[in-house]
Amino acid sequence: MCGIFGVRGTPRAAALTHLGLYSLQHRGQESAGIAAVDEAGAAHGVKRMGLVSDGLADSDMHALRGSLAIGHTRYSTAGSSSIENAQPVLARSRGGHIALAHNGNLTNATELRFELEEGGSIFQSSMDSEVIVHRIARSSAPTPEARVAEALEGVEGAYCLLVAIGDTLIAARDPRGWRPLEMGDLDGAVVFASETCGLDIVGARYVREVEPGEIVVVDGDGVRSLRPFPPRELRRCVFEHVYFARPDSSIFGGSVDRARRALGRRLARESPAPGADFVFSVPDSSNSAALGFAEEAGIPFELALIRNHYVGRTFIQPSQGDRDWKVKVKYNAVRELLDGRSVVMVDDSIVRGTTTKGLVAMVRAAGAREVHMRVSSSPVTGPCYYGIDTPTREELIAANNTVDEIAAHIGVDSLGYLSLDGMLESVPTGPQGFCHACFSGDYPTPPPTDPDKLRFGCGC
Amino acid sequence: MCGIFGVRGTPRAAALTHLGLYSLQHRGQESAGIAAVDEAGAAHGVKRMGLVSDGLADSDMHALRGSLAIGHTRYSTAGSSSIENAQPVLARSRGGHIALAHNGNLTNATELRFELEEGGSIFQSSMDSEVIVHRIARSSAPTPEARVAEALEGVEGAYCLLVAIGDTLIAARDPRGWRPLEMGDLDGAVVFASETCGLDIVGARYVREVEPGEIVVVDGDGVRSLRPFPPRELRRCVFEHVYFARPDSSIFGGSVDRARRALGRRLARESPAPGADFVFSVPDSSNSAALGFAEEAGIPFELALIRNHYVGRTFIQPSQGDRDWKVKVKYNAVRELLDGRSVVMVDDSIVRGTTTKGLVAMVRAAGAREVHMRVSSSPVTGPCYYGIDTPTREELIAANNTVDEIAAHIGVDSLGYLSLDGMLESVPTGPQGFCHACFSGDYPTPPPTDPDKLRFGCGC
Amino acid sequence: MCGIFGVRGTPRAAALTHLGLYSLQHRGQESAGIAAVDEAGAAHGVKRMGLVSDGLADSDMHALRGSLAIGHTRYSTAGSSSIENAQPVLARSRGGHIALAHNGNLTNATELRFELEEGGSIFQSSMDSEVIVHRIARSSAPTPEARVAEALEGVEGAYCLLVAIGDTLIAARDPRGWRPLEMGDLDGAVVFASETCGLDIVGARYVREVEPGEIVVVDGDGVRSLRPFPPRELRRCVFEHVYFARPDSSIFGGSVDRARRALGRRLARESPAPGADFVFSVPDSSNSAALGFAEEAGIPFELALIRNHYVGRTFIQPSQGDRDWKVKVKYNAVRELLDGRSVVMVDDSIVRGTTTKGLVAMVRAAGAREVHMRVSSSPVTGPCYYGIDTPTREELIAANNTVDEIAAHIGVDSLGYLSLDGMLESVPTGPQGFCHACFSGDYPTPPPTDPDKLRFGCGC
Amino acid sequence: MCGIFGVRGTPRAAALTHLGLYSLQHRGQESAGIAAVDEAGAAHGVKRMGLVSDGLADSDMHALRGSLAIGHTRYSTAGSSSIENAQPVLARSRGGHIALAHNGNLTNATELRFELEEGGSIFQSSMDSEVIVHRIARSSAPTPEARVAEALEGVEGAYCLLVAIGDTLIAARDPRGWRPLEMGDLDGAVVFASETCGLDIVGARYVREVEPGEIVVVDGDGVRSLRPFPPRELRRCVFEHVYFARPDSSIFGGSVDRARRALGRRLARESPAPGADFVFSVPDSSNSAALGFAEEAGIPFELALIRNHYVGRTFIQPSQGDRDWKVKVKYNAVRELLDGRSVVMVDDSIVRGTTTKGLVAMVRAAGAREVHMRVSSSPVTGPCYYGIDTPTREELIAANNTVDEIAAHIGVDSLGYLSLDGMLESVPTGPQGFCHACFSGDYPTPPPTDPDKLRFGCGC
Repeated sequence: MCGIFGVRGTPRAAALTHLGLYSLQHRGQESAGIAAVDEAGAAHGVKRMGLVSDGLADSDMHALRGSLAIGHTRYSTAGSSSIENAQPVLARSRGGHIALAHNGNLTNATELRFELEEGGSIFQSSMDSEVIVHRIARSSAPTPEARVAEALEGVEGAYCLLVAIGDTLIAARDPRGWRPLEMGDLDGAVVFASETCGLDIVGARYVREVEPGEIVVVDGDGVRSLRPFPPRELRRCVFEHVYFARPDSSIFGGSVDRARRALGRRLARESPAPGADFVFSVPDSSNSAALGFAEEAGIPFELALIRNHYVGRTFIQPSQGDRDWKVKVKYNAVRELLDGRSVVMVDDSIVRGTTTKGLVAMVRAAGAREVHMRVSSSPVTGPCYYGIDTPTREELIAANNTVDEIAAHIGVDSLGYLSLDGMLESVPTGPQGFCHACFSGDYPTPPPTDPDKLRFGCGC
Repeated sequence: MCGIFGVRGTPRAAALTHLGLYSLQHRGQESAGIAAVDEAGAAHGVKRMGLVSDGLADSDMHALRGSLAIGHTRYSTAGSSSIENAQPVLARSRGGHIALAHNGNLTNATELRFELEEGGSIFQSSMDSEVIVHRIARSSAPTPEARVAEALEGVEGAYCLLVAIGDTLIAARDPRGWRPLEMGDLDGAVVFASETCGLDIVGARYVREVEPGEIVVVDGDGVRSLRPFPPRELRRCVFEHVYFARPDSSIFGGSVDRARRALGRRLARESPAPGADFVFSVPDSSNSAALGFAEEAGIPFELALIRNHYVGRTFIQPSQGDRDWKVKVKYNAVRELLDGRSVVMVDDSIVRGTTTKGLVAMVRAAGAREVHMRVSSSPVTGPCYYGIDTPTREELIAANNTVDEIAAHIGVDSLGYLSLDGMLESVPTGPQGFCHACFSGDYPTPPPTDPDKLRFGCGC
Repeated sequence: MCGIFGVRGTPRAAALTHLGLYSLQHRGQESAGIAAVDEAGAAHGVKRMGLVSDGLADSDMHALRGSLAIGHTRYSTAGSSSIENAQPVLARSRGGHIALAHNGNLTNATELRFELEEGGSIFQSSMDSEVIVHRIARSSAPTPEARVAEALEGVEGAYCLLVAIGDTLIAARDPRGWRPLEMGDLDGAVVFASETCGLDIVGARYVREVEPGEIVVVDGDGVRSLRPFPPRELRRCVFEHVYFARPDSSIFGGSVDRARRALGRRLARESPAPGADFVFSVPDSSNSAALGFAEEAGIPFELALIRNHYVGRTFIQPSQGDRDWKVKVKYNAVRELLDGRSVVMVDDSIVRGTTTKGLVAMVRAAGAREVHMRVSSSPVTGPCYYGIDTPTREELIAANNTVDEIAAHIGVDSLGYLSLDGMLESVPTGPQGFCHACFSGDYPTPPPTDPDKLRFGCGC
Repeated sequence: MCGIFGVRGTPRAAALTHLGLYSLQHRGQESAGIAAVDEAGAAHGVKRMGLVSDGLADSDMHALRGSLAIGHTRYSTAGSSSIENAQPVLARSRGGHIALAHNGNLTNATELRFELEEGGSIFQSSMDSEVIVHRIARSSAPTPEARVAEALEGVEGAYCLLVAIGDTLIAARDPRGWRPLEMGDLDGAVVFASETCGLDIVGARYVREVEPGEIVVVDGDGVRSLRPFPPRELRRCVFEHVYFARPDSSIFGGSVDRARRALGRRLARESPAPGADFVFSVPDSSNSAALGFAEEAGIPFELALIRNHYVGRTFIQPSQGDRDWKVKVKYNAVRELLDGRSVVMVDDSIVRGTTTKGLVAMVRAAGAREVHMRVSSSPVTGPCYYGIDTPTREELIAANNTVDEIAAHIGVDSLGYLSLDGMLESVPTGPQGFCHACFSGDYPTPPPTDPDKLRFGCGC
């Protein structure tokens, strides 16, 4: 997953983009980058591995002048972590630069890449995003927006794009609208961000989403909109509401916090836990859902798991024998609350089951008498091809086990997932127009044909 | 403030100490260090600036062999941030090494230091803790514990100490007991940590506190206890419960989470906010208190402020005009919840008022109609001389303003602090035996005479 | 300037390349990189800013498996110093990877680039070398060598290339032969290096040069040679002998040490310094020439200037007033030798005159009575378009001043340059077939049309 | 070994010290440090691992204000490489700071340290230099110089010291005068440096040596001299002339370059190599001696070995089989010169013999027919206790082998060392008053009793 941010029309463009990336850090922590277009129309870029706060230094920012800037935070995925894969992609083509930041995953990148390679193109990264840059470069359409439109013809899958060509800033969102892209106004400057929390941090006023299939152009003549693609069925990612987005954001036109609260309430109705002493969440992403559950069930809400936010990326394993040390470094259970109690533990999802198993063991070690696990989404049974870095089907616990088997594996007294309908109906703007492929197997596109995703694959 | 951890009796001593420091990171983020005693009785130490996860590398850990180790995390204080002031202090004296980790602040360090300097001692740091090491070195008492006891005679102020002399591990706590020091057992190894969350992370069973005025000795003969000091009135720091300790810890014999919940409940009784739509906390330290308030008041609890945990230490200010950017990078308000509502914002304390003012502005900008601020402690009217890095009296907003003036300054519709009695009575083991000097002005010692605290001053 | 190294046919390919780059470090200190092709035919690359010893770590090397590797050291040039411009360029094109390392400068890179951009190519660096990679990718010729040959058709200027396509290693040298490229054998493995010192360090036996206009192909079938280009007049860079190459190298079929010795001898004949007490060199590049001068002139040779080799790249200027501190940090004069003496100072060239002026002042401050400067090359009157990073004509002291004016400016009693004929006749394989454009103005190609060399320019 | 530099009386004190350390970098590359005394009389220090150019940044220098500064470069010795052992030692004692930089090695440090530890002192490094700081702190003498004099009473072994106490700068040299310490004047400011090259780089005029047994005091009243110690027989280190000092320096009142030239000449007389084609040196330290040999013998001088100065400290071994790679990375032989020739290779010393053996093999591999090794010092048969980091007697090839055995081991056709008398008589100010213990076994002090030199030992 990735976060993207862009702004045009203020001399503080790069500084605001830097600030914006802080608020999108949860969407990607592997690398961060900013490209800015200076007064002379030249683009300069800085990309660094690591967090925004680690990587981009004062000295870097000095190079980024001008009133147009775009930025990107990239998620860490195994095997392809290198500076070549950081974004924005910055390239020079006919008559000027192209800078591009992409959130999402193309499903026909391999085919498009093969086609370009056959035509003599070279690729310097393993990102699908580079395909789009080549296609923009090859377009001979007369305007920047027409070049982007032509480039995106035939591109399948998920993309939210911010593209700087000359001093034009272009935002584009695929017709199915998998990923969010929000638009704001800051004293006349136009701001784009993956989530509204990116608008909030710079003080921009929310205007509207970039709509599915829309291309928004911002240049010296103002803001224009194109809709060059044939319409497709809407497939916004429900997992953004369940887990990925920040609760203070509004995406797809609805509040993430409100969605999670509703998911928790519905969960309490679908899968109550009568007799439990209290409800607690796996912090922080499940807090809203757990509160919703507690509220609906009329059971007290407690902070029975505490998360340590100082944990870095590298960690020294203390001993071979201790399998749960990763969980222990990140979480701790509050014995005074748990000892002798029957409790409901709410989490937003179970992927491999490893962390959940460790947390349940920790909660039991702190004295919990009964542990009732409730999950505010449906069982994840398939991979995501549209931008979320899920593991293969083999590693997904719900793809290979019944709910009872999972309950036994993670060691809980009862386990309840939210139903697919329950999940979709809880989203403020639902239940129509959401992608639930990883839960339901209802993939709106064929799977990518790429046999070797890690090596030639994706930008997200 | 600082966190200390020590263990004796396991070949994994340094690795466990490293793990323990992760859980005490909230007590100090400026530097981290570990000293270990190897089989040959030689001590080796590693100290690094920054977080445990940033600073201590695998290669560092390889140098730390042996079954006895102590560790330290140090808080960042202006002006004295340097590797010389990192701990543990590791020195060689008569017949062997002394390694020492200290949490607290001595109030007569200047006098003791002057006395030692007159006797020809040299000081290589600006920490008060170095004074204790010198005094241990100068003692000619026959045993390690007797040397520590002799060294601490006449030492005034707050200290929890872990000292390694030869292969003896000694824990000591000042007679007034300002700071917590907890003791655990891990398969026969003895473990000490500032808070019980340090015992939990290594899987140690909680045994008891090191008692005020107690010296605990751990060596080949087992565990012994000394009480060499004249008894003093108990003065445990109530602010540890209010703010400093982790809610999953138990300190001074009571649960921090339970204390905060009770503080919130009492606050709701003392200073209700009738008619408010909901209660929210300034995350994360005020979560328990806000829940308590909501529970007692019968008002819903919401997550209306979201905290960004990815913010690093260095930050590039986006522009001169934006005064609240520091607050904006760290927090964001949820408009969907706040818009048009009358809300209660619960925080654990107000120190300078700067952050609070920024948060109130953010909450109002998100549409809140009325903001009622409730604080789960009394007004902070004086500095702490016993280990917490409070600003000078001039900077403390409550030292120089009435509650009404503060309310006006931070921009709230109403402001309620908890009463001193209410605060003390809410602590599980209260109300007796707590230090509340920074709230009440009732300092149990004369203030330090040091005219130049930053240069020759404190270890915490 | 740059250094290139490649090897095919040994499992130690990357380690030997790393070793080889150490010996070519004098050809470029800005960045270093290695690309290797693993057993599965996949190329992996590592590029770092700085010296070979600073940049490429053990962990980097672990990624570089396989029996084919190429490496590159790049010279620091103002304004374009960034990791994007480090080499080898590693790209994926039709059916596989292309890795390329380039020494030299193309003179029609702008035109070629424009042509490619018009065809829709994107450029991610400002190096002319990227042009060649694109052209290889666009070639549909049936073999790797034919693709390289087709790509180089119409490419003007200086290039020595090492290219890995699949598991084929290709070496190519432009028809005029500006830069050296030597070939060796290491137990059956084929080794290429810019200079023979690169063969020596890995223990390879010298075989022959890659000849001007030759393409050497090394693959599973052995070593083959192609000569696809129309012949051109030979224009090997005489400055490689004068200054750039290492004296222990043999290039263009002749010993650099012997060339410099002969340059010094000829200089003594052309421009003697009768009555001088001794001769000394500006170390280290002028040592051979100064010895030759002393030998021929029958004057003693002394080490009157000492060079400090510990000077790094960053340096803190001690005060505004001290203009010669850069010279002082790098050199010191031996007063005991110089005091009261009449001396001959031999240097290989004078470019801007700044360093020379500082050295003369230093020598005079150490007591020298008379300073006679002798230069073992002709006056540099024009820039190099073929790979050496000379300044613009405006900055070249000999482009704008007579010899007498230069002597006055640098403060010497007499100044003698070597004549053009003298210089060319001194080279072992001379005087025919050398480029002396920067001395004579006799440029064998039109100057590059690029109006903005630093931004879109060169790979060297 | 170490280098020390100090200056008092100029606002550029720290900047000049920084510059001075560059010129003393050859005396120590492990760590570098500077301490400066500001206007308020407070000392601030910066110490970093690595080279002066790597370690001390602009930001460090900003902290170093004031008109008095001292600096130190420290040699890398196995096992004790850590920031705690970097100098200057900066401590606070009675009434103020003490900053101290030390070159040399005390021979009774263990006894002095034991005595101090018995008196209750603590040691935070493993340097003997810390002993002196403690002794200064314990002195109750009325003036800074009297405190230093009292502290040095009974201290045996080698020391050149620069000490800042308050705003007084004190230089001291042990009565036997093992290490050099030179004094200069820079527009009224007093400058001290281990060698005159340190005066040259800052533009200071050479005044005189600090004499053996002398304490020089520089304060607001000007420069004073004390001679508080009983006189001892002079024992200046002859190895400083042979190898350690820079050839552009004058030490002990004589030119290092002239000494080395004379050593080479004498070597040619004592141990000629009739019939050899030419002489070459192992660069750079043997250049002067080889020139002297060639001159005296009437044999040409050639640059047959080239040294690569870009080699860093870390290096990746290319393969297990290649034993000589360390030598190969650092040196290369010039085949064009050596092939088929009978040559004289001059080096300043043979310690373990490992490097020499590798060089001889390299020279033979380049075709040399006969290799005659000549060494411009006597065989090293014992360790140095006075500051040079020689290996133990077991590792010294000449301590355990005859000259013939050494010749066979390193693979030369003949081997000639300089005689002890020849060596001493070649030094400009010789032959009296030099220490030649490592050559002759004539140690002027008992060996240090320290059984564990690496752990508790030396500052050099």
